[in-house]
Amino acid sequence: MISYNEAIEIIKTEIRKLTFQTEEVNLLNSLNCILAEDVIADVDLPPFDNSAMDGYAVKYSERKKWNIIGEVSAGNYSSIKLLENDAVLITTGSKLPTSADTVIPIEDVDVEGKQFLLKPDAAFKKGINIRAKGNDIQKRKTAVDRMTKINPQVAAVLASCGKEKVKVNCKLKMAVLGTGDELIPIAQKPTEDKLRASNNYSLYAAIAEINHLPINLGFVKDDKKIVRQNIKAALEMDIDMLITTGGVSVGKYDFLKELFKEAGVKEKFWRVNIKPGKPIYFGVYEKEKKRTLVFGLPGNPVSCLVNFYVFIKPAIDYLYQQNKINILTALLDDDIKKKDNKRHFSRGYIYEENGEWKVKAKFSQSSGNLVEMSRANCLIVIDEEKINPVKGEKVKCILI
Amino acid sequence: MISYNEAIEIIKTEIRKLTFQTEEVNLLNSLNCILAEDVIADVDLPPFDNSAMDGYAVKYSERKKWNIIGEVSAGNYSSIKLLENDAVLITTGSKLPTSADTVIPIEDVDVEGKQFLLKPDAAFKKGINIRAKGNDIQKRKTAVDRMTKINPQVAAVLASCGKEKVKVNCKLKMAVLGTGDELIPIAQKPTEDKLRASNNYSLYAAIAEINHLPINLGFVKDDKKIVRQNIKAALEMDIDMLITTGGVSVGKYDFLKELFKEAGVKEKFWRVNIKPGKPIYFGVYEKEKKRTLVFGLPGNPVSCLVNFYVFIKPAIDYLYQQNKINILTALLDDDIKKKDNKRHFSRGYIYEENGEWKVKAKFSQSSGNLVEMSRANCLIVIDEEKINPVKGEKVKCILI
Repeated sequence: MISYNEAIEIIKTEIRKLTFQTEEVNLLNSLNCILAEDVIADVDLPPFDNSAMDGYAVKYSERKKWNIIGEVSAGNYSSIKLLENDAVLITTGSKLPTSADTVIPIEDVDVEGKQFLLKPDAAFKKGINIRAKGNDIQKRKTAVDRMTKINPQVAAVLASCGKEKVKVNCKLKMAVLGTGDELIPIAQKPTEDKLRASNNYSLYAAIAEINHLPINLGFVKDDKKIVRQNIKAALEMDIDMLITTGGVSVGKYDFLKELFKEAGVKEKFWRVNIKPGKPIYFGVYEKEKKRTLVFGLPGNPVSCLVNFYVFIKPAIDYLYQQNKINILTALLDDDIKKKDNKRHFSRGYIYEENGEWKVKAKFSQSSGNLVEMSRANCLIVIDEEKINPVKGEKVKCILI
Repeated sequence: MISYNEAIEIIKTEIRKLTFQTEEVNLLNSLNCILAEDVIADVDLPPFDNSAMDGYAVKYSERKKWNIIGEVSAGNYSSIKLLENDAVLITTGSKLPTSADTVIPIEDVDVEGKQFLLKPDAAFKKGINIRAKGNDIQKRKTAVDRMTKINPQVAAVLASCGKEKVKVNCKLKMAVLGTGDELIPIAQKPTEDKLRASNNYSLYAAIAEINHLPINLGFVKDDKKIVRQNIKAALEMDIDMLITTGGVSVGKYDFLKELFKEAGVKEKFWRVNIKPGKPIYFGVYEKEKKRTLVFGLPGNPVSCLVNFYVFIKPAIDYLYQQNKINILTALLDDDIKKKDNKRHFSRGYIYEENGEWKVKAKFSQSSGNLVEMSRANCLIVIDEEKINPVKGEKVKCILI
């Protein structure tokens, strides 16, 4: 059995071999997409010298009094030529008349009719309150780097660079296939030893949450022939990842590993020294130039989702060079029982109190307890060598 | 001019008067929606006593040796009746035979053919390794509360409760209308004093990012007649919020306030003691039973987006009772110049170093600098009374 760190390194090695496809999308629909091109400023930003304040544009001199000869507002530039005693009222962001070089803020003057006087305490220097052309970015420089995730402020920059359409990395196509004799459609009421197939729903949501493309393949019974057919069919699809649930533990129906091998999937690891989620399988299927990563997650709903959060999500963030803040250090509010040498991902509730992060661990840590997990907002990481962490200890928490 | 705290309280008072509409959506499409109903467990979860381990189910006694008489796996329950010396191999999650009450983990036994012996050091007690029926949640109890945001783990619980369709709050319909003589379509190249209309794109993305429905109304020139018509038309639409940009400052073309009044919008405040984004206008339009919140944001792209992040987003989070972790305390890496008594929202880059959060403030804090803002990952909050915070001081950072 390998360690968490070994497992994640193996996944990273394989995921970075995935071939990126790119596509063009409208800027309005590009939120959370990852740019597949450097975007170059096609103009200086700002495109012209403009006023940083509401005030009076003047040609600097040591005088104290000016005549107001006009007004400039955004989009209403006047090519007015200023003499030494002339000033124009100018609003924030408006283009500066070429003959002006300084803006006096309105609060620094006393206006009298068509004239104004500089207040005695005003800080008046040549060149103040001007935003110079190209100060934000110069024409032909890279405004947004490739691999940047498009958020609202990036969208604003792309718009300012005239990008109505942007080239982005295609979403990863990730198919989810459940397996298990115990599974029934969620519309049915479970009897005897049946369970509603919740993993299809949680994984679908988890994939959508990280802005990739979930493909729900439903679930099948633990019938070798049927599972074999479904795996083969899934591997023939145009997908980047196949995620199965169930059938990777050690029981008589845990034959997925064997079927993956039969289908030509190369096993990279099976079982990782963690809790929950130990039985995870990872392999790679290659056919011609196409690579499909194959994750066999356990059928237990808590284990399955924890596996997604601690293996699949970080691997995709790594692939797309994203490092969003999602790990916080917090002080444990409760003792946690942990006697083994596995890495644990315990459910917790993190909160801030007096400027300090704390985390409640009074959750049922049974991997059977999904409702409990749905009330957690983080996974508390307890390292392999750590035994029974106690209240007050610092722990890393992965926000979920 | 009112303070930030006063302004946000006024917005909260008004936003909570919005009438909620609800709709039914398929669970698969419900990610990030806010539940509009309490969801009750229609079965016990787990629905049956099951094994927490791969092991042997037995009827507890003080013996050390058992005969293996069968096997139970998930979905393949056997109603087998166990005698005192009988055991069945059982996999994690499988339903416990009714006559069994204890599970001995496989690692605690030595198997010999059809028998096994308990290892001498095994911790063997009655009732161990059983997940009891209803232990996660009991039938008829509330599994998920109304106003819960649907994330992957909540989706799993909803699936386990048989909710193929869920009742959720409708997304808020939020229309964006730009105003300004300086604006041109982003496909055009700006000449003279024109600027590409980036606010429509950044606000559209910002609304989509918080999972509401953006409606892009484009932009219009600073022509009173045209702006008046467009505001009236927008207020007649079935929308919850109208967000305009531009025309709320103090220049001759800043007549939006006046036009809002004319259209029947009741002003709640205009101008807040913050930087950037001071000119923000907020009003409410009521017609029959319909309320529309009206935000007049400044045209400056940085100010406009900061306004969205510090007023609109927190107000909606308040309305929907969400408190996602998005404020971190960090140590300033650089001095910040701040001489006035406004509340500042400066652009920063927050990062963790040796378990401590730090924030770089070496950003151009000019509200003209959008590219700079796109490289920030937080807004550093500097309170009204704070003057020139210096390196090493603790500051609050809003993640963006």
